[in-house]
Amino acid sequence: MRISFTKMHGCGNDYIYLDCRQTGLPEHVADWSVKLSRRHFSVGADGIICICPPSTPGADATMRMFNADGSEGKMCGNGVRCVAEFLYTHGAEKDSLEIDTLAGRKTLRRLGEGQWQAEMGCFSAMAADLPAVGVGEGPLVHMTVEAAGRSWDAAGVSMGNPHCVVEWPDENLPTGMDLAAIGPDFEKNKLFPEGVNTEFIYVRDATHLKMRVWERGSGETMACGTGACASVSAMVLRGVCPRDVPVEVELLGGKLNITVRSDDHVLLSGPAETAFTGEVEVD
Amino acid sequence: MRISFTKMHGCGNDYIYLDCRQTGLPEHVADWSVKLSRRHFSVGADGIICICPPSTPGADATMRMFNADGSEGKMCGNGVRCVAEFLYTHGAEKDSLEIDTLAGRKTLRRLGEGQWQAEMGCFSAMAADLPAVGVGEGPLVHMTVEAAGRSWDAAGVSMGNPHCVVEWPDENLPTGMDLAAIGPDFEKNKLFPEGVNTEFIYVRDATHLKMRVWERGSGETMACGTGACASVSAMVLRGVCPRDVPVEVELLGGKLNITVRSDDHVLLSGPAETAFTGEVEVD
Repeated sequence: MRISFTKMHGCGNDYIYLDCRQTGLPEHVADWSVKLSRRHFSVGADGIICICPPSTPGADATMRMFNADGSEGKMCGNGVRCVAEFLYTHGAEKDSLEIDTLAGRKTLRRLGEGQWQAEMGCFSAMAADLPAVGVGEGPLVHMTVEAAGRSWDAAGVSMGNPHCVVEWPDENLPTGMDLAAIGPDFEKNKLFPEGVNTEFIYVRDATHLKMRVWERGSGETMACGTGACASVSAMVLRGVCPRDVPVEVELLGGKLNITVRSDDHVLLSGPAETAFTGEVEVD
Repeated sequence: MRISFTKMHGCGNDYIYLDCRQTGLPEHVADWSVKLSRRHFSVGADGIICICPPSTPGADATMRMFNADGSEGKMCGNGVRCVAEFLYTHGAEKDSLEIDTLAGRKTLRRLGEGQWQAEMGCFSAMAADLPAVGVGEGPLVHMTVEAAGRSWDAAGVSMGNPHCVVEWPDENLPTGMDLAAIGPDFEKNKLFPEGVNTEFIYVRDATHLKMRVWERGSGETMACGTGACASVSAMVLRGVCPRDVPVEVELLGGKLNITVRSDDHVLLSGPAETAFTGEVEVD
């Protein structure tokens, strides 16, 4: 069977987008994700995102995401912006869209050409929400993590998924770190029974951060939307970044803007770009 | 402007193939190659290969190849098989095709479904042909290369491009080596004024090799057709592999079969696969 797809990315976080609004979720999409995600040999991507009919009254669509290993994810901040851009350019020309995800309904607002803002829900720094163990109840503004042969002063933040945020003193962060040597030690640390995503950030000033991320199960990636949200939330808790003001986070794959509201809601803004369209044979 | 392309690969060596038989070489193809080759952000590939009208009487087409950095290459053993497969599936249903390249005309023979054999020309182990300096005139069956803090017993072979072939005693070759630490020291060695491609091979038996390759300008790749040819040629010179018999070379991206004929001509056989088709916007 030959299927049509649209390849889109947000800051280099790239998925194969399938329009399933008429058909619903394809039966073999997990297998397809494994096969089609393989770079060099197939389309190559971080996974497949299916744009399905809405799950709740009044929503515009449902996003279902599958990683390159075939596992299903709940939400992806870069992915949900691309879903909004896809809907916008394929019939639903509205500046505000409601997208159902496995992590609840998300409101997406169009800021301009290929730029979208997503309401990401509330952050939490409570140990039970990450989860993290042996670090007290929280909020985890400062906790000590033993990893890669030293002690790190980290903050713990949940954005629905667990994050460990570490400030780094060196502004050459993106080139001066061997993340592949450090990241796995955080990911598999006994403090985080479900693993953890780790963000290393350099604070340029109160509204400008630089970040590299080691994602649970994926290793280093170009961009992690929830990681950027967690990093700014952690810096808000530490009094480094202000609330209710956009903070720019510079990642390897581009820039995201994060606003942590006074009510702890987090807004994520950034690009959603169409790279190309194609057709591919699947079983 | 929106262009159509076919994404193909031979053992994971993947290019964006453009059908330029009617139009000739696009003016801005070097720029396109830089832009479209970028993985995560665009189509993602090792470069662009254009299938142009023949340059010599009786040929079926001309292959012009552009690397991901925009530079033009002369020949690619994995690429030329894909050009043949493209021609075969797009009108020219012949089992033998003549393809012009910047390294001369190549004859491609169809061995079966998606399997092609290319005549790669003669190998040479003479120093002037690589070029290599300070190692005598050749044939370079054994030469000493100082790299990564030790002395290596290497063979030097030209397949039109320069190769340095090193036997490795460990059969866990594909996982047990830090090529990124060793490869650049060979590539930039003073013995090779134009750089060199380095193949590390494990001899399983006289007709089965395992290989990893560090390509000049590209780093480690999934597969290198000329590298596989050079490796078998070197082992023929050392009396390890026979002539006139196919020798299987197992690479990270798949398997190639190499026959070194008695007249020093080298035949390369392997897969040529279509991954998907697409359309992309270019300037």
